[in-house]
Order: sequence, then structure tokens, then C-alpha cells
Amino acid sequence: MTTVGVIGCGYWGPNLIRNFAENDEAQLLWMCDADPKRLETMGRRYPFARTTSDYREVLSDSRVDAVVIATPVATHYRFTKESLVAGKHVLVEKPFTTSVCEAEELIALAERCGLALMVDHTFVYTGAVRKIKEIVESGEIGDLLYFDSVRINLGLFQSDINVVWDLAPHDLSIMDFIVEREPVAVSAIGSCHVEQGIENIAYLMLRFADSFIAHFHFNWLSPVKIRRTLIAGSRKMIVYDDIEPTEKVRVYDKGVTTNRCEEGTDKEATYQTLVSYRTGDVWVPKLDPREALRHVCAEFVEAIAQARRPLTDGHAGLRVVRLLEAAQRSISNGGQFIKV
Amino acid sequence: MTTVGVIGCGYWGPNLIRNFAENDEAQLLWMCDADPKRLETMGRRYPFARTTSDYREVLSDSRVDAVVIATPVATHYRFTKESLVAGKHVLVEKPFTTSVCEAEELIALAERCGLALMVDHTFVYTGAVRKIKEIVESGEIGDLLYFDSVRINLGLFQSDINVVWDLAPHDLSIMDFIVEREPVAVSAIGSCHVEQGIENIAYLMLRFADSFIAHFHFNWLSPVKIRRTLIAGSRKMIVYDDIEPTEKVRVYDKGVTTNRCEEGTDKEATYQTLVSYRTGDVWVPKLDPREALRHVCAEFVEAIAQARRPLTDGHAGLRVVRLLEAAQRSISNGGQFIKV
Amino acid sequence: MTTVGVIGCGYWGPNLIRNFAENDEAQLLWMCDADPKRLETMGRRYPFARTTSDYREVLSDSRVDAVVIATPVATHYRFTKESLVAGKHVLVEKPFTTSVCEAEELIALAERCGLALMVDHTFVYTGAVRKIKEIVESGEIGDLLYFDSVRINLGLFQSDINVVWDLAPHDLSIMDFIVEREPVAVSAIGSCHVEQGIENIAYLMLRFADSFIAHFHFNWLSPVKIRRTLIAGSRKMIVYDDIEPTEKVRVYDKGVTTNRCEEGTDKEATYQTLVSYRTGDVWVPKLDPREALRHVCAEFVEAIAQARRPLTDGHAGLRVVRLLEAAQRSISNGGQFIKV
Amino acid sequence: MTTVGVIGCGYWGPNLIRNFAENDEAQLLWMCDADPKRLETMGRRYPFARTTSDYREVLSDSRVDAVVIATPVATHYRFTKESLVAGKHVLVEKPFTTSVCEAEELIALAERCGLALMVDHTFVYTGAVRKIKEIVESGEIGDLLYFDSVRINLGLFQSDINVVWDLAPHDLSIMDFIVEREPVAVSAIGSCHVEQGIENIAYLMLRFADSFIAHFHFNWLSPVKIRRTLIAGSRKMIVYDDIEPTEKVRVYDKGVTTNRCEEGTDKEATYQTLVSYRTGDVWVPKLDPREALRHVCAEFVEAIAQARRPLTDGHAGLRVVRLLEAAQRSISNGGQFIKV
Repeated sequence: MTTVGVIGCGYWGPNLIRNFAENDEAQLLWMCDADPKRLETMGRRYPFARTTSDYREVLSDSRVDAVVIATPVATHYRFTKESLVAGKHVLVEKPFTTSVCEAEELIALAERCGLALMVDHTFVYTGAVRKIKEIVESGEIGDLLYFDSVRINLGLFQSDINVVWDLAPHDLSIMDFIVEREPVAVSAIGSCHVEQGIENIAYLMLRFADSFIAHFHFNWLSPVKIRRTLIAGSRKMIVYDDIEPTEKVRVYDKGVTTNRCEEGTDKEATYQTLVSYRTGDVWVPKLDPREALRHVCAEFVEAIAQARRPLTDGHAGLRVVRLLEAAQRSISNGGQFIKV
Repeated sequence: MTTVGVIGCGYWGPNLIRNFAENDEAQLLWMCDADPKRLETMGRRYPFARTTSDYREVLSDSRVDAVVIATPVATHYRFTKESLVAGKHVLVEKPFTTSVCEAEELIALAERCGLALMVDHTFVYTGAVRKIKEIVESGEIGDLLYFDSVRINLGLFQSDINVVWDLAPHDLSIMDFIVEREPVAVSAIGSCHVEQGIENIAYLMLRFADSFIAHFHFNWLSPVKIRRTLIAGSRKMIVYDDIEPTEKVRVYDKGVTTNRCEEGTDKEATYQTLVSYRTGDVWVPKLDPREALRHVCAEFVEAIAQARRPLTDGHAGLRVVRLLEAAQRSISNGGQFIKV
Repeated sequence: MTTVGVIGCGYWGPNLIRNFAENDEAQLLWMCDADPKRLETMGRRYPFARTTSDYREVLSDSRVDAVVIATPVATHYRFTKESLVAGKHVLVEKPFTTSVCEAEELIALAERCGLALMVDHTFVYTGAVRKIKEIVESGEIGDLLYFDSVRINLGLFQSDINVVWDLAPHDLSIMDFIVEREPVAVSAIGSCHVEQGIENIAYLMLRFADSFIAHFHFNWLSPVKIRRTLIAGSRKMIVYDDIEPTEKVRVYDKGVTTNRCEEGTDKEATYQTLVSYRTGDVWVPKLDPREALRHVCAEFVEAIAQARRPLTDGHAGLRVVRLLEAAQRSISNGGQFIKV
Repeated sequence: MTTVGVIGCGYWGPNLIRNFAENDEAQLLWMCDADPKRLETMGRRYPFARTTSDYREVLSDSRVDAVVIATPVATHYRFTKESLVAGKHVLVEKPFTTSVCEAEELIALAERCGLALMVDHTFVYTGAVRKIKEIVESGEIGDLLYFDSVRINLGLFQSDINVVWDLAPHDLSIMDFIVEREPVAVSAIGSCHVEQGIENIAYLMLRFADSFIAHFHFNWLSPVKIRRTLIAGSRKMIVYDDIEPTEKVRVYDKGVTTNRCEEGTDKEATYQTLVSYRTGDVWVPKLDPREALRHVCAEFVEAIAQARRPLTDGHAGLRVVRLLEAAQRSISNGGQFIKV
């Protein structure tokens, strides 16, 4: 049984609280928020847990094994550090931190203390993404060619972070999980149409060591809601459409075959390419419909119990932050490629 | 009555021939192609026109007023030049030429000769694009914020040109027509997954003098066919989905309103932004369902008759070629922004 | 301020309870259910209200003005009757009763007692249906020609009622509200594929005094979820697609025009019809996105306060039950038309 | 090599002509139409075939093996009869005839003469319908439960036949081919909103000997175009959406499982049903993309060459006409079930 205190009862906190409350291996001890009204609401909902507006009460409670941090990103570093120092395992919201520097320090600290440090890359735990991972890992789609993701909507404008820091953690963590490769360079372009200094539209481009590329479109100012990822392989291709209520993942038996044939016997023997299309069935696999956050909480609790690294550990969080930081720098430099 | 000879009876030529044959103000005199089988087919279909495999027969026929060139892009310059020199008006397929240099020379030549020079930017003549132009010009959607276009499919691989030269002329000519602004810099990234040296996927980014940006995704290797353009304005937003059989254009009464309010009276009076969403009706205007090419042919014939510039003249063709050339250079330079 | 007791905390009850709890003009006094576990859950959620497993406690509490009944349909008659006898206003779930006879008795009773009697025809209070009503009432779509509704899914099989009694109340109440006409005859055909005696698929046909017709397809055993209604008028046509997240209502400026022209002057002067199509814009009106049940509760409270009939009163409930009863009889008679 | 004469060059005739012209086993000898303008157009397109406005020229030409009849339905009987009498094999458009009586006479006549008699039930030859047939025949979807078809559009109004005679032959021939069962009774309801006596909307209901049912919605006055058929089996379900450009057939691994369990050991041991849902993968099979009419022509030519019955012979045509006739009678009788 892992005892848990949750700091932050704003947008995402209540979902984490609910899932820990329903997890048989976890016991919710504390809920903490600066806003007394929110605390009261949560207190009524989970009368068995204590509430406080002072997070230090949570950290100093020796019965607490683990702390869950669901506060604004600017505070992740501080709360995570203090929690680790207080000897608590930590599950922290995405994006992990506001800089690579902070992320590296926290990882080192957690390792020194022998504590679990997990980042809530929720999408990695969805039925859809886990199914895609399974398909890609099986080799069924062949070599990966490109990853193209669009996440656009008339969205919730943030006043503290731009569209990249808001939306990219989703797609970058999905890509990191499925592709298992790190890019060599990042370029990003954005534009501010609503609030000076806060990009509301941005395009990210990742280059890798070979011809594999990844591209992302993030947008808070789109008339239509699109959340679609194309993952092309040399043998098959996957479309992941998160708007679809149930048929989110489609595997297309489609591709191109090239037959290189030596032509003639003359000196300047040239190779000509014959390109032919292949179009076969489409397969829409059934997905685990359970809430991703349930798996997030279970993974955190299990990693602690087994004293092992969680699936989306600090390093996974760091890899995403590294790309976000590089993207931000590229935007400031007018789209220049930044080595990572 | 304008007399016409068509050079090239391959993929697109027969469509041009059919439309000129059906145009009451035009008279089809010649059809020319190197392939005798194609010529025979066309000859049976339009027995009133003559056929030849030697384009010089067309150019030397003094009865011919205008030449229509529907040959591979590499030959556009030569055929257009010889036609102009022979005193013929010219309608040439897109992309206009393979370089800015060629395009500029042809424009100058046509002007010197007092001949009409038109590029077949077909999409500009569709009911959808003309309706969008009308809406944008009316001011209804407010200031333009961004232009985002996706044109992807499991496409026809070309062996001579890459996906940018193949698909971008469509979207760049549409943007050029609607936006009526020229970008200051172009960046493009592509990747070759099938044939070395022939990009099958590419992303284009256009920067303008202000915060307006344009972005394009071209792809011959996509499992799904998408042809969708978002045109966001400060008041309304347009989605142009060319896959839709009839409801291709949708105008969303959606947007964001920012209210800047001076806060307090203290020295460091700060301005805070209040962002609010606006979501209203959607309007799907009825479109002219007639074939775009019919309007292309009519415009060409009318421009000749009225001795005026056609809507998509050599300059329009040049603007597109300038972007293609810059995009190609950017791809070669790893995505660097190229000033235009 | 209207004081309310709710009987039934199963599937729909909690939604009613939440809406009454949030209504400033209502005060939730009692929650009643036979299941102690449900009661406990609800008690924790609304600690200010009392809970009981004996509905008579609610009816005998003189502080209670109104009773809300969200129990299985077979018990509606009894609970409604006892509540009215106890001097309480009643809001009862749909379908109102299991027979016309019961419904008529309850209406008479409520009128004798001067009490409000309302049936929760929830869909009538949705933004979509109210907008359609407004459009139809304005005369914009012309004369009504037909009403065609499909409500199919791999649904929740009921063990006590068939698909008609389960799903038809939705569409019949919508039709009743929008069309404001009563049919002259009902025919229904159903089939039982899962449980003998419980139809899981059924088609209903309503005939009216003139050429207007209404047809319904209800199905618990469909691989796809469809909830779409076509409402055709002589001038325009409406498609109401309840699956669409926001663009639920579409108004098509489409139709057919007939020009009757007298032909020739010969003795047997015949009238020939020239039919021509008309296709114009599509309009997708913005809808009130608020929860329909909020409006249901507000209407109930307001009707009591103003001592007026609620919008969906007992008579509306009776009209739906009359059609359900006739449909059931038609199914038993192999699809014969039943006069109503 | 089968020599062919085609009577009727209106709407569908040119498609038949083109396919016979392209069939290596057939030789197009004659094209016949009352309209000289149409004849001239067709003559220019197929200069190797003769044209005539007198069908008797075709029938009396001893070189002609087979006659293809693509004229209005009212003339099918006469042209087919005269062709058979002249010793020609016949391929006739759907619907076969205007009455069961005519159809039976023609079948008997063809059999007496030893001539092939085929009805052009085009949809039966599409890649989609043949794939569905294959799946159903394999037993993969289990026992057939229901067949539900919707074919609606703002359609081409006919002045001589109603929407049932116009559209139902498509779906009835598809059902006849896939289900291979004949109904025991037919009911139909229609309404005339445009032209008195010509139903523009109609619903058909077919009852079979067991719980399998079939239902159809035909409509010329719908704002949206829908062509979708649901075929539910006890194990899997098929959705056939003919509007989809490529993914027309979807096989859903969905269904309901009933577990009947004996409850308790008391005397009145009751059987209770436990219903559970099953939702698995969706499979979208690749379809033969070739034109159905090509297969129609090939089947006709091959059946003649092999002196065997064609797949959609006169009996198939008769089965459809029998249902059309019964539907028409039911409409006239206000929807009464007509035994067939």
C-alpha cells in the first residue's frame, strides 16, 4: 500500500486524486491547494483524506510515501525537489520542468535518494498509443519513415506558456515512446496573433540521423478540432485519430514497392526505379477503453513497490523538455535548426 | 474566334483539348504529341482538328492564333519561347518554368511581342477558390492570420520532379490568388523514402513581413487522402476541404477577442489581456459546380480578344516558380530560410 | 423556492438530483432509493439532503412541494398517483406510463388537484431541438413533408421493455414538439434476435391526414451508432445529427420546384410537370450548449411558481404513450396500421 | 466472339456500349436509338459499329448473336420478346419488366428457345457486393439477423416511375444475391410530395419465414446523399457504405452473447438471460476496384459461350420484379402486407 499526497487541485489534480482514490494499492492521505474553495470541494468528495493549503504539511507527514504534483509548470522544479529531499517518491505533471538543467538536477537527486521519479505522460498510457507501440514493435509496419502530428483547436489560451509548451508535451511524449529514437536537430516556427510573446500557432520539425523525420502542427486558433498522427512505415502505415470515439487507430496495408532493375548491358548501365503501389486491407484494432490515468497511477504505485523505474521516468520527461527547450530557442532564432 | 493548337496530349492535354473544343469562341486546329497512339485516339475523338507529331507544324501554321502547352515542365520554356517567337499567344501548364530566370525571360518576351501569356493555375478558377477569394476580399473574415494547407495522398510518384514541384504549384497559386501578398522568406524540409534525390514528403514554411504565416504539407506517401486548407482571419475562419463532394468551403464565425484593460491605478499599471472565445454559426456557401478548366479556357480566349492580361498571367506563374525555386534551395540547405 | 424530493437514484436520477441541487429556485430535501449503497453515495455527494429507502417518508413530509420520479416505467403510475394524492407536484421520467389509460387518469387527477404534472421529455429542451422548433415555426422551411429518424446503436439491452419503449420516447417527443400534429395511424414491425418477446429492432411508421409521413428506425443491435433525423420542408430541409459534437443542426437550402404548364391548345390539354432542383447554401446555426436537464428543472420549478402548465405536461406525455401503445399493438398484429 | 447489338443509347446505354467495345470476346455490331443526335454522337465514338433508329434492323441482322436492351422499363418486355423470337440472346436493363406476368413469359420463352436471358443487376457485380457475398457465404458473420438499406438523395425525379421502381431494384437485387432467401410478405408505404401519383419517398419492409427481416428507405427528396446497408449477423456485422470512395465495406467484430443459465434448484427453475456485448476489431477489406459493368458484360458473353445460365438470369430479375409488384400493391393498399 502506497500512501499519497496530492499537491494541486486545479484542472488536472482532481483526475489524479480520483484515480488514486480508486486504486486499491494506494491510499490518499492529503490533498493540497492554495485555493480554499477547491480544497473544500475536494474535501467533501473524499472525506477520508486531509486537506491543507500548506504543502509543507504534506511533505513533513512521515506517513506519506509519495507526492503527486499537479501545479503550474513553473513550480514543478521546486515542489519536486522539496518532495525528493523530504524522502518522497514523486509523480509530476507534464511538462516535467521548464528547462533541461532543472530536469537533469531532479533526475540526479532522485537517483541519489533511491526514489521513484515519474512524469505523467498520460497519452503513453492510452489504449491507442499502447496498441500502436505494440504494432510498431512487432515489426509489422516495417522501417519507420515519418511521424506527422496535428493537434489543433480553438483552444484554451494560456497566459503563462505558449502553444508549444502547452500541446507539444502530448505529441513529443507519444513520439518518444513509439519511435524510441532521439532527433539530432529541432526547428520551430511560431506566430503570435492574440497575445504578444505567446505563440498561438507553431510548427515543429525534427531531423534524425537518417531519412526519418517528424513534424508537428500545434494551434490554439483553428476553426476545427484535429488530433491526428500519421506514422508511416515501409510496409504499413498507421493513422491515429484521437477525435474518433472508438476507432482511433487504423492500420493501412498500403505502401510503395520499388524494383530496381539493371537496364540493358551497355556501358552506362543505368538503374531505373519501378515504383508500384500496394493497397490492401485496413485493420481497426480494438483498444483498451479504460482511462489512461488509471494506468498512470497503477504504474507509479507498482514502480514504487517493485523499486524499479517507472515507464515514463525522469529521463522520458527530460527528453521531452530537451525538445521543448530547443524548439523555444529555434522560435526565438526565426526557425533555425538547433542541435540536440 | 481564337484558333488554337495544343502541344501535348498526355495526362492533362486531353482535358484542355476537350474544353477548347467545347468553347464557342475557340476553334481547335491542331493536336500535337510525340506518341502516335495518343494522337490517333485524339484524332478519332476530334476529327475536325489536324494531328501531328511535329510541333513546328503547329507553330508555322499562320492560321493558328494561340498555342496551348501541356508537356513536361522541363520543356515549357522551350515550347513557350518558340511559340511566342512564332507570334502565338500561349497558355502553358503549371508550374510555369523550372526557374525564375526562364520565367522572367518569357514574360519579357511576351510583353515585347504584345502577346498573351497565361499559366494554367487551374485551382484559381474553381468555384471553391473563387468563392473564398470573394469572401476574403469582402473583409468579412477580417485580417488574415495564417494559411495552412495539407495536400497528401498515396500519390503518383514522378520520376523527374519531387513532391514540391508536383503538388506545391496548386497550393501556392491558390495562396497567391487569395492572399495577394508575397512572402519574405521560404524554408522547406523534405525527405526521400522511395527514390534517392526525389523528395516524397516535404513541408514548406513562408514568412511574411508581419505575423501572417503560411505552411504547407506535401506528401506522396500518406495512407489517407487529405486536401484541406485553413485560412484564419481575425473575425472568421475558412476551411476549404477539396475532398468534400459539394460542401468544400465552410466559413466559421469563430475567433478570439482580446480585451486589454488597464488594471488598477498604481505606478506599475499593467495591462492584462482577457481572452474570450467567440463561436457562432457555420456557413457553407453554394459553389459554382462547373469545371474549372472551362473557365481557364474562357479566360485565355477572352484575354486575347480584349488584348488584356489574363488573370493568371506570366507574373502569377513567376511568383509561384520563385517560391518553388527557393523551397528547392532551402531543402538542399537543410531547411535554411531563403529570402525571396 | 420549490422544495423537492427525488425518488429513484439509478441511471437518470443522479442527473436530475444534480440539476435540482444547482438550481437556485429549488431546494433538494429528499433522495430516495431501494438500494442502500446508492443512497449512501448520493448522501455523501449532497450532505444537505436527507436520504431514505421508503418513498412514503418523502410523500408524508409536508415541507416537500414537488416529487421527481426516476424509477422504472412500470412504477411511474403508482408513484405519480400517490404523489399527487399527497398534494405534491410531479416531474416524472419518460415514458410517462405504460398505458394510455394510466396517463389519462393521472392527468385528470393532477387537474382536479391543481398540481403541476410534467414529463421529462429531455430532448425537447436541448439547444438543437429548440433551434429546429424555432426554424420550423418561422416558416423558413415551408410546409413539412416528412420526418425520418434513425436511432441505432449496439445498445443497452433492457430486460423489461423492448427497443420501442426504450428509444421511441426520445424521437416521438421530439416529433410531437416540432411538428405539432397528431398522426391518424401507426404501424410498427419488430424482430427479436436476442431475447424472445423483447424486440431489439423496430420500424415505426406514422400516417397523418395528408401526405406528411413520419418514420423511425430503432435498433439495439447495430454495429454503428446513428442518431439522425431528417425534417424535409417544401422550401428547406433540416438534418439533425445528434452524434456531431457541435454542428448538430444543418439547414439545407435545397428543394424541388414544380412548374405546371398547360401544354398546347388541343382538346386533351395536358398538364405537364417540370421539376427543377434548387441547391443553395447550408447553414449550421450555433446552438445553446447548456445541458438540457438544466432547462427541464427550471421549467418544472417555474411552472409551479407561475401555476401554469409546463411545456411538456401530462398531455405531451400521453401523446407519446398513445403512439407507443399503438406501436406495440401493431407489432403484435404483424405490422397492421392501428388508428389513433 | 459474341456479336452484339445495343438498343437504347440514353442514360445507361453508352456505358454498356463502351464495355462491350472494350471486351475482347465481344464485337459491337449495332447501336440503335430513336434520337438521331445521340446516334450520331455514338457513331463518331465507335465508327466501326453501325447505327440505326429502327431496332428491327438489329433483330433481322443474322450476324447478331445477342441484343442488349437499355430502354425505358415499359418497353423491356416487347424488345426482349422480339429479340428472343428473332433468336438473339438478351441482356436487359433492370428492372427486368413491369410485371411478374411479363417476366415469367420471357423466362419461359428464353428457355424454350435455348437462349441466354440476363438482367443487368449491376450492383451484384461490384467489388463491394461480391466481397460481402464472399464473407456471408464463408459463415464468418454467423446467422443473418437483418438487412437494412437506405438509398436517399436529392435525386433525379422520374416522370414515368416512382422512387420504388427507380431505386429499389438496386437494393433488392443486392439483397437477393447476398441473402439467397425469398421473403414471405412485403409491405410498403410511400408519399407523393412533388407529383401526384409518383411516390418520391417510400419505405419497404420484407418479412421472412423466421426472425430475419429486411427494410429499405428510398427517397428522391433528401438533403443528404446516403447509400448505406447494414447486414447484421449473429457473430459479426457488415456496413456497406457506397458513398465512401474506397472503404466501402466494413466488417465489425461486434455482437451480443446471451448466456442462459439455470437459476437455483427450486421447482420453478427459471431461465434468465445474461446479455453481454462483444466489441472487437474492425476489418476493411480491399475491394476489386474495376467497373462493375465490365464484369456484367463478361458474364453475359461467357454465359453465351458456355451455354450456361448467367449469374443474374431471368429468374433473378423475376424475383426483384415480384417484390416491386407486391410493394406497389401494398402502397396502393395503404401499407398492407402482401404475401409473395
